Amino acid sequence: MKITIIGLGLIGGSLAKDLRKNRFATELIGVDNNDENARTAIEIGLIDRIETFEKGIQNVDIVIIAIPVDKELEILPLILDNISKNTTVIDMGSTKKIITDSVKNHLNRRNFVAAHPMSGTENSGPTAAIEDLFRGKITILCDQEDSGPQHVALAEKMFQTLGMDIAYMTSDEQDHSTAFVSHLPHAAAFALANAVQAEKDRNIIFDLASGGFRSTVRLAKSSYNMWHPIFQQNSQYVVESLDVYIKYLREFCDCIRNNDSEQLKELIINANKIRVILDGENPHFVKNEETIVKLYTK
Amino acid sequence: MKITIIGLGLIGGSLAKDLRKNRFATELIGVDNNDENARTAIEIGLIDRIETFEKGIQNVDIVIIAIPVDKELEILPLILDNISKNTTVIDMGSTKKIITDSVKNHLNRRNFVAAHPMSGTENSGPTAAIEDLFRGKITILCDQEDSGPQHVALAEKMFQTLGMDIAYMTSDEQDHSTAFVSHLPHAAAFALANAVQAEKDRNIIFDLASGGFRSTVRLAKSSYNMWHPIFQQNSQYVVESLDVYIKYLREFCDCIRNNDSEQLKELIINANKIRVILDGENPHFVKNEETIVKLYTK
Repeated sequence: MKITIIGLGLIGGSLAKDLRKNRFATELIGVDNNDENARTAIEIGLIDRIETFEKGIQNVDIVIIAIPVDKELEILPLILDNISKNTTVIDMGSTKKIITDSVKNHLNRRNFVAAHPMSGTENSGPTAAIEDLFRGKITILCDQEDSGPQHVALAEKMFQTLGMDIAYMTSDEQDHSTAFVSHLPHAAAFALANAVQAEKDRNIIFDLASGGFRSTVRLAKSSYNMWHPIFQQNSQYVVESLDVYIKYLREFCDCIRNNDSEQLKELIINANKIRVILDGENPHFVKNEETIVKLYTK
Repeated sequence: MKITIIGLGLIGGSLAKDLRKNRFATELIGVDNNDENARTAIEIGLIDRIETFEKGIQNVDIVIIAIPVDKELEILPLILDNISKNTTVIDMGSTKKIITDSVKNHLNRRNFVAAHPMSGTENSGPTAAIEDLFRGKITILCDQEDSGPQHVALAEKMFQTLGMDIAYMTSDEQDHSTAFVSHLPHAAAFALANAVQAEKDRNIIFDLASGGFRSTVRLAKSSYNMWHPIFQQNSQYVVESLDVYIKYLREFCDCIRNNDSEQLKELIINANKIRVILDGENPHFVKNEETIVKLYTK
């Protein structure tokens, strides 16, 4: 399989490692408008060669888009304008509604499979690429009825080769659930980092930074280039998730402020249920509920 | 060294493991009002024997208090009432001002060393005890001028044996910085868990729960018994930290809502500084600043 990866950062680079290792890719072509990233990707053996955008997307089986979602919005129509007839185009972006809307009426829309592999780290660039980044994680495939079945099938095969489970939903559903699962925790970490940096005793606080603080604030290291456009493209649901979160924080805070011991107890015990939910037979624990039937079925 | 540990949960049990392993303790006595925990602690070899509270605190070199801070508030004066003349009493509680105030005028106040080892996991009970839980972490020693120097020295020796660094500050300073470093992230996780559980598509959200979400919400598994009294005893500073956090969340949210791209960029880039701060030469990176001189010096 001849595969071109556009964007040789954490996601594109990690994909390259796994696709080569499991021999899904027989030829790996890289496209990156950052020359240093491109050179590094060659040096550390992530890809076989670098091509220009125009050449890179010609005569390959799969084009993978692994760049920030604002750049993807610019480049996706150009890719669909220029690809060969049978090429499958798969994106990796964290937002979907704006992306899929932008090519809704494109003649080659059916070559495009809108995907979001739910995996990453707070690091970026080709040197951040790691093996098995995707193993055991979930990929969301969106609006699969708008893609050609052969393209969906190839995307499924690729993600399964990476060791991923696949969930199917609409772009709108993915944007809402991803706002809570991913965008909100990142926004919360950015805000926590800013809050603590503004404290007078911030130096003591950072010196003491313990496991709990570190794991909560870890995501605040995430790159501006990636996250700024995500918040902008999914602004409606990110704002909704932040409003909801702030409401529950306010409730928790007022409870402590008013020394409402019984209510505080209830809030903590309700939150504790997350242990069973997260450590249970996820992701199949709610199989019987209507909302989840969409997952793992087509 | 003959040591009695009151409370055989995660902290007391982990302490027992390390103090035995590094031969700081030659005899380990356990006290726990939960019979099952006491039995388990004997069965898995955490301690040598169980004693009643009254007997357990007699004729030992060190009494360690590793129970929820509301229970500690009840029991600390009773311990100081009844210990032998040379016994050192060390607590492990996450709050300090209310605890130290409660024994401020006790005749045996100088036997007591107020400590807070900054380590833990979201699990509890004797079976949650793990080796090296404290290695590389920081212990805060509070108001050391109120403790006898020989007792402080023994506590320091014990914590250093565990592989910990020691920070010195007042109870009030510890309560403020710990509110931000530890209590706030826990409150935030409890609120996030509650927020998501209230969403209509919660099942999809939990099914998708990725690394970022999991690490942010992990602390919401923490036990009610431990955290309810912490929030109550440190309510003033926990409320302050939550108010500050909510202010910064609101700022972040409004920025996205108003599509203020420049301001959003600034907020993320400022938050990113946490990478250098947390991955830098912590905890020594601010040595030269006044606030930090108290750390690692007496």
